[in-house]
Amino acid sequence: MDSRRRVITDAAVLIEGSRITKVGKLSEVKSGTQPEFEIDAKGMLILPGLIDTHVHLAQALLRGCADDTSLIDWLQKYVWPLQGNFDSQDGKTSAELCMLEMIKSGTTTFLESLLHTRYGFDGIAASVETAGMRGILSKTVMGLPSYGSAGGIMHPGMVEDGETCLREVEEYFKRWNGKANGRIRVWYGARSLGGCTPELYKQIAAGANRLHTGVTMHLNEVREDGEYTKREFNKLPAEFMDEVGLVGPNVVYAHGVWLTEKEWKILAKKGANIAHCPSSNMKLASGIAKVPEMIKDGVNVGLGCDGGPSNNCYDMIREMKIASLAQKARLLDPLIMDAETVLEMATIKGARALGLEEEIGSIEVGKKADLVLVSLRKPHLVPPFNPVSHLVYAAQGSDVDTVIIDGRIIMEKQSVLTLDESKIIQEANERGPNLLLRAGLQVKPKWEMV
Amino acid sequence: MDSRRRVITDAAVLIEGSRITKVGKLSEVKSGTQPEFEIDAKGMLILPGLIDTHVHLAQALLRGCADDTSLIDWLQKYVWPLQGNFDSQDGKTSAELCMLEMIKSGTTTFLESLLHTRYGFDGIAASVETAGMRGILSKTVMGLPSYGSAGGIMHPGMVEDGETCLREVEEYFKRWNGKANGRIRVWYGARSLGGCTPELYKQIAAGANRLHTGVTMHLNEVREDGEYTKREFNKLPAEFMDEVGLVGPNVVYAHGVWLTEKEWKILAKKGANIAHCPSSNMKLASGIAKVPEMIKDGVNVGLGCDGGPSNNCYDMIREMKIASLAQKARLLDPLIMDAETVLEMATIKGARALGLEEEIGSIEVGKKADLVLVSLRKPHLVPPFNPVSHLVYAAQGSDVDTVIIDGRIIMEKQSVLTLDESKIIQEANERGPNLLLRAGLQVKPKWEMV
Repeated sequence: MDSRRRVITDAAVLIEGSRITKVGKLSEVKSGTQPEFEIDAKGMLILPGLIDTHVHLAQALLRGCADDTSLIDWLQKYVWPLQGNFDSQDGKTSAELCMLEMIKSGTTTFLESLLHTRYGFDGIAASVETAGMRGILSKTVMGLPSYGSAGGIMHPGMVEDGETCLREVEEYFKRWNGKANGRIRVWYGARSLGGCTPELYKQIAAGANRLHTGVTMHLNEVREDGEYTKREFNKLPAEFMDEVGLVGPNVVYAHGVWLTEKEWKILAKKGANIAHCPSSNMKLASGIAKVPEMIKDGVNVGLGCDGGPSNNCYDMIREMKIASLAQKARLLDPLIMDAETVLEMATIKGARALGLEEEIGSIEVGKKADLVLVSLRKPHLVPPFNPVSHLVYAAQGSDVDTVIIDGRIIMEKQSVLTLDESKIIQEANERGPNLLLRAGLQVKPKWEMV
Repeated sequence: MDSRRRVITDAAVLIEGSRITKVGKLSEVKSGTQPEFEIDAKGMLILPGLIDTHVHLAQALLRGCADDTSLIDWLQKYVWPLQGNFDSQDGKTSAELCMLEMIKSGTTTFLESLLHTRYGFDGIAASVETAGMRGILSKTVMGLPSYGSAGGIMHPGMVEDGETCLREVEEYFKRWNGKANGRIRVWYGARSLGGCTPELYKQIAAGANRLHTGVTMHLNEVREDGEYTKREFNKLPAEFMDEVGLVGPNVVYAHGVWLTEKEWKILAKKGANIAHCPSSNMKLASGIAKVPEMIKDGVNVGLGCDGGPSNNCYDMIREMKIASLAQKARLLDPLIMDAETVLEMATIKGARALGLEEEIGSIEVGKKADLVLVSLRKPHLVPPFNPVSHLVYAAQGSDVDTVIIDGRIIMEKQSVLTLDESKIIQEANERGPNLLLRAGLQVKPKWEMV
């Protein structure tokens, strides 16, 4: 998948340092080149690394803790109390578990949406450096202890103060932004409607402009967002965000399920981006975002897996299929959201959302060598009619064989080289249940466990 | 998952011959027993084998041939012309490819929905015997060369004559039903509305009663089914099927997307079953069947993957997640179609649909030893909060480690012992493109292939 959206057969990619220096037919790429070593990708797809535009690293440890429940119970009874009891080692283990899963299923770049101070920003950033991933870490900024639009009061362990949050973002930005050969970036993570005063949102916008960095925020995930801004400000959510200066190309809004046409046209006009999370939105019954309509009107839409208790996995390959199926079923139109559109969302459109379209998102000379090799020698990936179809509609995360990020081999033959998989799984298996104990919670499966 | 819907930890299952003879805690099962050999299932889930109630074996070879297109184009321009050019070796290769994929993703029993004579019934049945699966093979019965309700004329290579079809079902029934230690059964596969005269449907019903066997048929997959029966018979589709004697416990209707309450109450009253195929229905934009409403009114609903060009894979584990997400999004209710309900559809309710609930569908003393081991030592399947949630919402087909059918190990450590995986993949990679050539068709991906 090169810059011209072509599929090249019998292809090769030459990497020098962290960048792609040649793309084309094997014979052309090899001509006049003596590579130090080669990876045999026979029978495989070479893809641009997948880009997850909305992920919660600190929720991997909560996978399966709260299924088949309403969003507000999900937040108030499980997610917030558990995360309000996190220590920085929980944060690190959860982030590493999440990155293991992302790498194994072909994600090379992610936008982490809301890191609270207690998760341990420095530890998590260090883990991203170690893991070798390309990651944008957004530090939560909040001023009010509620998820105002949907009601509910946050666990005290999660509550932070606006001024402290703003100061911490600047500190983390100085310490980490551009580190690890540019792989790590630091953004503002504005809490959803009801979590900040208008003044605080304005300070976030000003801070992001000053630091030339980005902002991400949940918007219109739930219908209550619109009711809240109508009641409090007599505006639609995107109108309100525009008023506080938070609609621009450096902003990624997660979800956007209940966005109205009027709102997405504001986003399109000002170049703001949407991170569409179909599995999470469907599982939490938030609804299905009007993605084809938004794309038609010029909104840039990326794809996201969201979190362990909402999705419940971090697998962009499986997410692509759900993204297509959801719209086809919603609009009763089999032609909508074809495989190519969905693959663009998971790659080049995601890159654009993160302000990285010059660097990643396609296999192009001069871009970073973030590449994923998918093995097609599987019963569910033959015969070889259309590789894009197989990738979107038939593949699963476990078909990824090799992952290269920033020119470095991160996974080889399904073995992650940068993280200790069995140790992280063991830690997660200990820390998850311990966290429940500390929070005084129980996960009670509906079927008796004897 | 035993007969009481319990999850037993530190459990063991004792198998003697083809049947389960003990289920319980490891210590209880081992007491007084000297097994010939043991399979170490530490860190794994032991599940009842998954049951796919609607599958087209002869469509695996067509995977990815016709995506993002309307149902009628899909049938008329691709599926029918390609299948109308099948020879019996294509049928066998496609069936083996499909079974490989099913076994690898934990399906042990399937209902094949429509085998045309040209696919080679005997060859496919012999492959089921070899593969070691439990399979119901339904032979197509048709009298009219159309998919009447949705319009469209079938490829001449697919057209068969009613009397011949009826005779062939009886022949195949005599030759194969009950063979392979009872693993193989033969049913009638009635073509959808417009494919048979009322008289022929009555003959199918009579034949099934005489042979004490089952019938499967597509019903209400598309809205046009209702328009057709209204126009031709002034009835709803299920009313019409009832009139021709085809609503009973030995009948599995695939899809049922457009069933009305009046119709599913007829099915519930007479014990007929639905095979729900959410991925296929969403991808072809048929819609989303009203499964929770049907279940509430007493309809028995199983789950199905349908086919290679509609789904595009045969993975019941991935299908379970989509089954849940589709309903939660349709009804905006996060409590609907919980993980346990979906797992029942994929196991015990599927068994009931196939008339096999005394034999398979749960892990119970006296039942057939159809068991699947799923490895939980994966980043996406920890921490260990609720195994049913992990299986439905986070697992993928490739997490299946071991498959036992009829007491025999069919797959061990992800290696299928009964079929030659690399040979079948190679054959599919040759036969798929050859089939296109013979049919004079091209699959043209939207992106240029260079």
